[in-house]
Amino acid sequence: MSKAKQLRDRMAERGLVRIMAAHSPLSAVLAEEAGFDGIWASGFELSALYGLPDMSLISMTQHLDMLRAIAGRSSLPIVADIDTGYGNAINVIHAISEYERAGASAVVIEDKTFPKVTSLAAGGRQELLRVEEFQGKINAAISTRTDPNFLVIARTEALIAGLGEEEALKRAAAYEAAGADMILIHSKQKAPDEVESFVRAWSGKAPIVIVPTAYPEMNEERIKALGRIAIVIYGNHAIRASVTAMKDVFARILKDRGIHNVNLDIVSVEEVFRLQRMDQVKVDEDRFLE
Amino acid sequence: MSKAKQLRDRMAERGLVRIMAAHSPLSAVLAEEAGFDGIWASGFELSALYGLPDMSLISMTQHLDMLRAIAGRSSLPIVADIDTGYGNAINVIHAISEYERAGASAVVIEDKTFPKVTSLAAGGRQELLRVEEFQGKINAAISTRTDPNFLVIARTEALIAGLGEEEALKRAAAYEAAGADMILIHSKQKAPDEVESFVRAWSGKAPIVIVPTAYPEMNEERIKALGRIAIVIYGNHAIRASVTAMKDVFARILKDRGIHNVNLDIVSVEEVFRLQRMDQVKVDEDRFLE
Amino acid sequence: MSKAKQLRDRMAERGLVRIMAAHSPLSAVLAEEAGFDGIWASGFELSALYGLPDMSLISMTQHLDMLRAIAGRSSLPIVADIDTGYGNAINVIHAISEYERAGASAVVIEDKTFPKVTSLAAGGRQELLRVEEFQGKINAAISTRTDPNFLVIARTEALIAGLGEEEALKRAAAYEAAGADMILIHSKQKAPDEVESFVRAWSGKAPIVIVPTAYPEMNEERIKALGRIAIVIYGNHAIRASVTAMKDVFARILKDRGIHNVNLDIVSVEEVFRLQRMDQVKVDEDRFLE
Amino acid sequence: MSKAKQLRDRMAERGLVRIMAAHSPLSAVLAEEAGFDGIWASGFELSALYGLPDMSLISMTQHLDMLRAIAGRSSLPIVADIDTGYGNAINVIHAISEYERAGASAVVIEDKTFPKVTSLAAGGRQELLRVEEFQGKINAAISTRTDPNFLVIARTEALIAGLGEEEALKRAAAYEAAGADMILIHSKQKAPDEVESFVRAWSGKAPIVIVPTAYPEMNEERIKALGRIAIVIYGNHAIRASVTAMKDVFARILKDRGIHNVNLDIVSVEEVFRLQRMDQVKVDEDRFLE
Repeated sequence: MSKAKQLRDRMAERGLVRIMAAHSPLSAVLAEEAGFDGIWASGFELSALYGLPDMSLISMTQHLDMLRAIAGRSSLPIVADIDTGYGNAINVIHAISEYERAGASAVVIEDKTFPKVTSLAAGGRQELLRVEEFQGKINAAISTRTDPNFLVIARTEALIAGLGEEEALKRAAAYEAAGADMILIHSKQKAPDEVESFVRAWSGKAPIVIVPTAYPEMNEERIKALGRIAIVIYGNHAIRASVTAMKDVFARILKDRGIHNVNLDIVSVEEVFRLQRMDQVKVDEDRFLE
Repeated sequence: MSKAKQLRDRMAERGLVRIMAAHSPLSAVLAEEAGFDGIWASGFELSALYGLPDMSLISMTQHLDMLRAIAGRSSLPIVADIDTGYGNAINVIHAISEYERAGASAVVIEDKTFPKVTSLAAGGRQELLRVEEFQGKINAAISTRTDPNFLVIARTEALIAGLGEEEALKRAAAYEAAGADMILIHSKQKAPDEVESFVRAWSGKAPIVIVPTAYPEMNEERIKALGRIAIVIYGNHAIRASVTAMKDVFARILKDRGIHNVNLDIVSVEEVFRLQRMDQVKVDEDRFLE
Repeated sequence: MSKAKQLRDRMAERGLVRIMAAHSPLSAVLAEEAGFDGIWASGFELSALYGLPDMSLISMTQHLDMLRAIAGRSSLPIVADIDTGYGNAINVIHAISEYERAGASAVVIEDKTFPKVTSLAAGGRQELLRVEEFQGKINAAISTRTDPNFLVIARTEALIAGLGEEEALKRAAAYEAAGADMILIHSKQKAPDEVESFVRAWSGKAPIVIVPTAYPEMNEERIKALGRIAIVIYGNHAIRASVTAMKDVFARILKDRGIHNVNLDIVSVEEVFRLQRMDQVKVDEDRFLE
Repeated sequence: MSKAKQLRDRMAERGLVRIMAAHSPLSAVLAEEAGFDGIWASGFELSALYGLPDMSLISMTQHLDMLRAIAGRSSLPIVADIDTGYGNAINVIHAISEYERAGASAVVIEDKTFPKVTSLAAGGRQELLRVEEFQGKINAAISTRTDPNFLVIARTEALIAGLGEEEALKRAAAYEAAGADMILIHSKQKAPDEVESFVRAWSGKAPIVIVPTAYPEMNEERIKALGRIAIVIYGNHAIRASVTAMKDVFARILKDRGIHNVNLDIVSVEEVFRLQRMDQVKVDEDRFLE
């Protein structure tokens, strides 16, 4: 059974699945151990890992390489953040083929023009593609996938672009009509009202995906109470947690003039060995090294 | 002035420089902001990022790609951990040429046989190369560098292999004779005695490098009191800090059934934007987007 | 002296320099041995090597990786074909920084919209960027380069887009005004008239670059007679030669049911060893393998 | 049906299958069009493409990247040349997992020590691994593959190392006992006698693979007359043909001072477009670009 089928089954079974952003196999392994249902191969997190703004600077090659490495180490289904699809429908065809081969179970494509600006930045220009052009991209993605369970998720930035709920609903319906399996509705308002209102007004059949980074009080209780939302993506907490910890540990090492204190407060080297599967290496060495 | 020259000058000026392991441009940027003197492009950290044991599985290409990305985002000199040099002296020639082009200011080559096992693993087989063969590698490295300030650091695993101080000193002297600029003495004893004894007994001219992961109480005060040590590398605290924080945050999100709590305890999205240099993007957009 | 300076000096000295397309270090080494003045890191050739249409499917990472490998094996200056610069002016800033670090001496940026279609394809839609927007990209490139000799070459597709000579001249002047060091005028007419007419009418100071693939009778004699053209790029003959030869050899092996005949008509394995510098390896083995 | 199964079926059906070396998707596409049964993802050809000696300088990442690109463009089964497996049995486990994921249908592992020297070079040191150690590698490979049809081919260099037929037979038998699906017997003698004698003396069940580069008169008629050989690999004629053609075309362009003559003797740009599948792009543009 493909991982894409597993992801669909889990949605059917649980109602809501929880997907954690990862920027590396290590963070994906930790998310799997924690108990998440899937991995968000986040463009924002990978850009941040590379110290670059999330503005179409990381190439598809770099994103694919990391996703492939994650797929090699985690058994969770991976939802790939492919931004605008790296260009037009022709680029989308190439991308879907590459992402499916790399081990993704789903992609999220958004309706902004290329090159994109991160949705959460204040005051960025946020132009949307014509509806028909984005439908062509969805259609291209659907027609390219070889596993019918592979999910094509259409993300509309209509609310972020300030075009209002009516436009967002119209676009979501058009994207569903073009074949999108799910609709990701994105918002950068500090409160969930905008998203909640959209969800209540949504009359389509496609389930909804949200990424509540900007409105963190929208917890799973509220999400379930709303209904219609089948996936919640926690979009950047892995990298933010890592930054928080590295800042603290780096400052303390310099202040303490040594690692004698921080050593007590971080996981041991042995714990990293465990995550690297050194135990399996020892088994393999006994078995295969003659 | 090359960064390699800067690193040499800083050693001359300060006596001891502090170098922080990084596994990504982001961790390197944080180390630079914190105030470290250089970056350790650690094979262990990169292996851990990829969820793989530190056993020559990460390729030179993967290590170079990450080092190059770091060099593009941090102005600190980078000391590259090239393990055994990816093979014999012929491989070392290729490696030095590639690492210098990628932006490294120094390499550390170790005297284990290929493929290596991480030095900190318990019970791993730890075979050392014949002294003459390792001298050939050092000589090859010295002869290949184009910047005479580029540092070739010879790392001996004699203590870790259980061969004793006499062998370690003999090897260090032989490596210096072959042209090594500095000697890295490695130990996995829980107390610094073994390393301290080596440092006191060392009569060569080459300054010493240490990586006090296993004996964290050897802080900078003790290091300076000893003398002879010009570089201390903090070898894996960036990745251990990240693991610690991700484990905690992932568990809390699942327990809290939402991000409403963790959101308060990790850096903001805006802080990540700052590290990604979004401010510069805005300046550039105003200047160049017509 | 930087290779970019060498390229400028050679233009000053010879009037016309000849640059050969390459898709690999091997083809670059052969071009250098033949006597060309520089390498064209061609997007078309690399796309063809990967079996992909030249439509912004090859990523910047893939192009940079190949260019960097070429720079490691050839001492010739490299002119990088960066298409539209991988997006807007922000992407151009990132690209210039990466290409300069990778070892390029010049870039050619074209005034089509992203994603591009290869200029030589019949009937492709060929939209051009607004003049001001492309000036912003040139300006961004100029402002980003760290070596003032690094050449920023603006390529106009005005003739190919059917906009006529007047528009082409107007754009060339605007690009020069924005800081472009040279103008590449492209045409897919089967005869050189269109390009010759442009060159005669050009009153700017920036020297001209041409790529006479479509109008091969425009040989160096005619080019020199025209004047103003400082670089001729032979844009895809390396890959076309390779295809021609592989088709022939593959067919013959199957027809002959063996390699006994083709073996006589292709270079020996020893010749490939020479191009791989096996002689240097033997010297190095004698010197460094103990 | 997996491509590995297709390859096994074709051997069963035809007795002898013909596999052509490729160094790129383009050369693989040409080999498929010509009618070969499979692709040899040759380390020698890829090293040559990169202008590097075939001495373990190309990384597994570089080889995998090219193989994956080939698998994306050719429907033929791919036999991967993984040299010594990039280290010991632990490295082999990692390699098999990565090559199977990348789209290979078979691997050839050889019994030389790492780092290897190309078998065809005169006078290179050619040390072989202990039989038991190489059996451990084969066993590791067999235990790692997930598709039972994935072929593990053991290559012995015993003849090349000058150890004689008896040692070659002993090793081949030991490798078959360890689970190898096929035996590749390699020779650099100018005449096929050595290989023919080995094949006649071979009493194992595993079919044999040969690479008759050094003894080209061993054509398919002779191979079939011998029996036992199920795969013939034509190991480097794609790159040698390309070199031959590029040398000629480059020299002529400089001599002719233009492309007017060579243009008539090489395939057209339109033929390259065809190989890049531009026709499919036009279909897709009509269908998906709105």
